[in-house]
Parts: sequence; C-alpha cells; structure tokens
Amino acid sequence: MSIDAVDFFYLSMPKVEDIGDGSQDALVVRVAADGHEGWGECEASPLVSIAAFVTPMSHGACKPVRDVVLGKKIDAASSIAALSAAVEMECMDLLQAAHTFSGIEMALWDLLGKKLNAPVYELLGYKKAYPKLPYASQLFGDTPAETLAGCRKARENGFRAVKCGWGPFGKGSLNDDRDHLQAAREGIGQDGTLLIDAGQIFREDVEAAARRIPLLEEVNTVWFEEPFLGGAYAAYGALAARSGSVKLAGGEASHNVHMAQQLIDYGKVGFIQIDCGRIGGIGPAKRAADYAAAKGVTYVNHTFTSHLALCASLQPYAGLESHRICEYPFAPKSVAWDMSETHLTPDRNGEVNLPAAPGLGIAMSAAGMRKYLVDVEIAVKGQTIYRSPKI
Amino acid sequence: MSIDAVDFFYLSMPKVEDIGDGSQDALVVRVAADGHEGWGECEASPLVSIAAFVTPMSHGACKPVRDVVLGKKIDAASSIAALSAAVEMECMDLLQAAHTFSGIEMALWDLLGKKLNAPVYELLGYKKAYPKLPYASQLFGDTPAETLAGCRKARENGFRAVKCGWGPFGKGSLNDDRDHLQAAREGIGQDGTLLIDAGQIFREDVEAAARRIPLLEEVNTVWFEEPFLGGAYAAYGALAARSGSVKLAGGEASHNVHMAQQLIDYGKVGFIQIDCGRIGGIGPAKRAADYAAAKGVTYVNHTFTSHLALCASLQPYAGLESHRICEYPFAPKSVAWDMSETHLTPDRNGEVNLPAAPGLGIAMSAAGMRKYLVDVEIAVKGQTIYRSPKI
Repeated sequence: MSIDAVDFFYLSMPKVEDIGDGSQDALVVRVAADGHEGWGECEASPLVSIAAFVTPMSHGACKPVRDVVLGKKIDAASSIAALSAAVEMECMDLLQAAHTFSGIEMALWDLLGKKLNAPVYELLGYKKAYPKLPYASQLFGDTPAETLAGCRKARENGFRAVKCGWGPFGKGSLNDDRDHLQAAREGIGQDGTLLIDAGQIFREDVEAAARRIPLLEEVNTVWFEEPFLGGAYAAYGALAARSGSVKLAGGEASHNVHMAQQLIDYGKVGFIQIDCGRIGGIGPAKRAADYAAAKGVTYVNHTFTSHLALCASLQPYAGLESHRICEYPFAPKSVAWDMSETHLTPDRNGEVNLPAAPGLGIAMSAAGMRKYLVDVEIAVKGQTIYRSPKI
Repeated sequence: MSIDAVDFFYLSMPKVEDIGDGSQDALVVRVAADGHEGWGECEASPLVSIAAFVTPMSHGACKPVRDVVLGKKIDAASSIAALSAAVEMECMDLLQAAHTFSGIEMALWDLLGKKLNAPVYELLGYKKAYPKLPYASQLFGDTPAETLAGCRKARENGFRAVKCGWGPFGKGSLNDDRDHLQAAREGIGQDGTLLIDAGQIFREDVEAAARRIPLLEEVNTVWFEEPFLGGAYAAYGALAARSGSVKLAGGEASHNVHMAQQLIDYGKVGFIQIDCGRIGGIGPAKRAADYAAAKGVTYVNHTFTSHLALCASLQPYAGLESHRICEYPFAPKSVAWDMSETHLTPDRNGEVNLPAAPGLGIAMSAAGMRKYLVDVEIAVKGQTIYRSPKI
C-alpha cells in the first residue's frame, strides 16, 4: 500500500479553559492508502502539529513531515518502523515533528490492521489482550470537599482506582496538601487504589517533593507522578532513593523512546507512563513497554483525551498481563467523547478490554467530529499550504 | 520594562535545497519593551515556531508562548529566568515552545543589555570575553577531491580548524570514509585542528560508529560529533568508553538544560555543543556551560546560521578562557549574512572576539532582512492570528 493522503482534523470545544484538562481539543488524523483508511490522534497543540506537517523545508534534516510520509509504501509492521526512522532523520531539527508523526503512526497501525484483518496488538506480537484496571483520572478540587466529592463520584461510577492531580497540590502548605490527600483517600475508600499526580509543580526541588512523601504514605499512595520537570531525571533519581513505599511515575513528556528508557534508567521510576500521541506512536511505545518489562518497571498508558487515543495507548502493553492498571479519561469534554461512535466502557468487573477487531477497533463519527471542527488556513508566499478538510 | 511586542520575521532563500545547510532560512525575533528593542533568532522551522507563538490554547499547560510572554516585566537577569520557568510550566505540552522561546529569550538579553548599557556576557557574570578560535564548519564534499578543496579553502581563508560533516560520511564503506578523512586532513594541513560530524548517521549502532574510530585516530581527529541520535545517551556512553584519543561531541539537539547535563553525565561527551536558538536561549545555555566546566567537559557553541545567532551563542561561555574553540559559519547563504549590518569577522590572529557593546552588539539590517522576508498568514475560525509584519 502507498500512503495516498493524510488529513488532519482540528477539533475543539467552543471555549478552552485555563485548566489542566487535556480533553478540550484534539487533532485527529486520517491516513488513506490503496482504499484503506486508518485513524490516529496527536496529543497537544493541534495548530502547531499541523504546521509541522506542511511547513516549508528549512534544510535536509528539517523537512516537513509531509515530505517524508506521502507516497511511502506500508505493507508490514517493519515498514512503519522504517518510516519512523526516516522521520527521525529527515525531521531531525523540527522539534514538533514527533507529536505530528505520532498520530500518523497510530493511523498506520489502524490501517494495516484493517488490511491484514488483525487487531493492532496482534501485529505487535501479542497473542491476546489482557483486561486492564482503569483508574479515573481527574483534577484535584479547589477545596478538599471538592476532591472528596470527585473521588466519591469515581467510586460510585465503579472505579476501584483514582488519580488526583494538578490544581492546588504543591502550591500551598503541607497541611493543605494533607487535607486534599485525606479527602481523596476517603472518597475512593480504604480498599481503593490511590494515585497522585503533582503536575511537575516542584520543578527540580527534591526537598519540596520529599516533604510530601510522608503525607503520601499516610494515605497509602501507590504512585507519585511527575513531581518534577519531565526531563529532570537526576531529580527523579534523587527522590526515588527516599520515596519509601511510594513509587515514582512519569514519562508522559517522552517524545522518543530514549526519553522513556532514560527515565527508567536514571530517574528510577516504578511506573513509566507513555502517551502514544507524543512518543512517536505505537511502535516506539511498544519498545518502551518491552524495555520497562525487562527492567521490572510497570508500563502504563497516558491518556487524557478520546477513546481513539485510549485504544491506541493500550495496544503497546495489551499482552503484558501483570501491567494491570490503565489511565482512563473519566470525565472528558464532549469533543473527546463525540468524535467516535464506539467507546471502551469498563465491563461488569470494572475492567477495560480492547476490541478484538481489526486495527484499533474504534469507529469514528464524522457527525461527531463535524460539530467541533476548527477552520484553519495557513498561507505562505500567497499560496494556501493548509486548509481544514471537510469531514 | 514591560514586554510590549514580539515580532517574528521569517526569512528564506528563494529556493531551499535538500542539503544539510541550516543557513538557508531563519526566524528572527524582535522584542520591544518601554522604548527599547532586542533581537534574537530561533533555530529551525520558522513557520512551526511562529505557530507555537500564536496557536490557540489547548489547556492550562499547553498555552501559546505569546500568552506567557506579552506584558511580562523584565528588569534584571532574574526576570528573564522567571519568564523561562513560566514558559516551561505553561507551555509544558507544547513541544515546539522551546524553539520559539529561544529567540525571544535571546532578544530579551539583547534588550536588557542595551537598557543597562552592558554586554550580555557581563550580565551573565563574566568580567571579560576571551577570544575564541573559530573552526570553519562545512559539509563533506560529494567526493574526496571536493572535501580536500573545501578544507584547503578554509585554510587559505585563515582558519586553523575545520569541521567536516554530513554528506557521504558513514553511508558508504570504511574505505570511502577513510578517503574523505585523509582528504580533510590534507586540506587543513598537519598542524590544523580537524573535527568530524557524523550527523547522527549511525542512529544507535555503536559497532558501526566504533569501526570509524581507528580511521579518525589516523588523521588525529579532535572530536567525533553526533555519531548517534541526539537522545541516545546510552549509545554515546558505550562509544565513549572505546573511542581512544578521539572525544565525542554532541548536544545541539538539547531543547532544555537537562538534556545537555545528561549528555555529559550519561553520554560521556568531551565537548558539549549548545545551540542558543534551541535550548531555550542564553540563560539555559549559561547553565549548561557552568555544568560542563564543573565536570571537565568543554563547552562549544552550535551555530550554522547568522552572526546574530553566533554572537548570542558565544555569550554563555565568553568568560571561560580554556574553552577555546567556537563554531563559525564559514560559508552561509546570503540570507544569514545580509540580515545584519555588522559581523564577527576573525581578527588578525584568526580569532573571534565578542563586541564590547551593549546587549549582543549586533546591528541588524532592515534592508537586508526585507529582501528575504516570507509572507505568512495563519487564520483560525476566520480570524487572522498571524500575518508577517513589515520591516
């Protein structure tokens, strides 16, 4: 198959709020090849990722992603890997290219699975997909009472695990943080799994993060996510050495497989969280999962957006039975829900199962996407180089 | 001073060729604050970096760079650092933001230096700027004869050091590489300093790179630059352990200070090469220089574009006397030369000296830039959010 067309659909809520909710917009990608089509999603900043697809070439190692992708042959998993390698070399100096290509790569797996009549996890070498235990991913409330209510709601909705993050955590006193942590524990119940996400608030300040460890231990926190800037591996490593029963988690910022490996090797995280919409797609994420498994680190998806992204993000570790937990967008904005006709709802055991269907197994909704489509036009030297396609 | 305006000027040669020459286009930034103005330059992919400045917000940690920068107070070096930290947090998920902000940060130092009537290197804490020995940075020829001619030309132009990179190196047989290396040595002369840049050609293949070490030693190569993908620290570390008299060099891909530190700590490079137009500007580059000096690693600028970028890139290590060498764009395209009225030409000793003038000390040329200005328009939801400014 030859890649005939790549179309980007920039979707957004009418109003985007200044909160840590990544489900407010989306960049959906459709790839067409020899009558087949596949769908993927890039994480973060749709306009910028579109620009990286269409931008004029700066030099031989700073090409638009389009120039590397269009017309390429895709017939097997190995041809997707070869294309990834070509993008790494030919878009070397185009920083945003990794995000742009992530959605394309995802769509290529979807397309190849449909063509070969196999779920993506089979193409990745897994015999079956094990069910995952979803955690409800949500923001801390502005007050402990709101945090309590949010966690109770997750519990009432059948979730046995919850993650609270961002919001006021780490910005006030230790007592403020303790109040939120106790509220979260009360909300999810004593037998629930509690995960805490600091949203990089401590930057590189190991001492400030370390002061929260006893509070996290009090409420039996399983992981402490992103205490530091995504690339500050030394700070992660220093905190890991004194984090007691709490394991560190991180990795969502990884935009190549090396970053994931290094956060494991040097940052000593216990959980490596990979966003397939950033790391370069499903192939590099699978490499990260293999590496994690070999190093005794647990792989977890990072997904705060749609069920297309969710379905893609579960493939790389679908066959790793003991890597049990998965991030589940608990209360996404309507754009993230409406874009697909099918969704991965938890089963009667409260577990998430990947569709045993060709490709990613998610049916997209043209009508759902149309409601949120953002009209974009980019012109260079008087020539339109991008205009939002119809859907 | 309050940041009143940030203007981007996308300049380009009429035709950009598919070669490893980064001087074919440029993104120049002008920042205005309280009647002062400063100039900076972002490295790589102008359109994408512009998009990262103006893009609609995706969520609280994925804002356009514009929203973080405009209106901020800049009165001292510390306020530039505070702004950098704000960009890291508020543009956390916008991958391209580091490149976009790099040019802005550079311009802020230029502006602050003009306001305080001090060269940037003084604002960075250096008492004086030591002269640097420039190396002529150029591509390998298509044939050994071309490589020989290029290096001879550099020598005839007064350069005592030359770097050859990219082109055919690493793509053919060991004998092909040897022929090019011998030609380069012959061209620069037995007493010249020879540097070799592999342009990431070996990706992560340590054995393939290691096979070149004896050839590099035969011609007394000082450094072997970027044998591997920018983030593949483990491969760098493995090669460093067996690179004999040749030291590894790398770091140009660093888009934050942690990446530079990690290439030193884990990649064991002997030379750390920082591009101020990528790492977030002059402040993070200074941190990288301090770190390198403390670890016994030599800091070098990475500059393949204009003399504005060159002047900015020398500031972070201007006061480090023993870090002697500097990259010098030997044969840039006319756009990179014409954009400024003043240039850093080597003195009678063949050395490069920073201007002892306020700010970066480079006078820009409106007429020079106007010739290469690329007209860009970006519209979202029918509203123009960016149009190339007049100059």
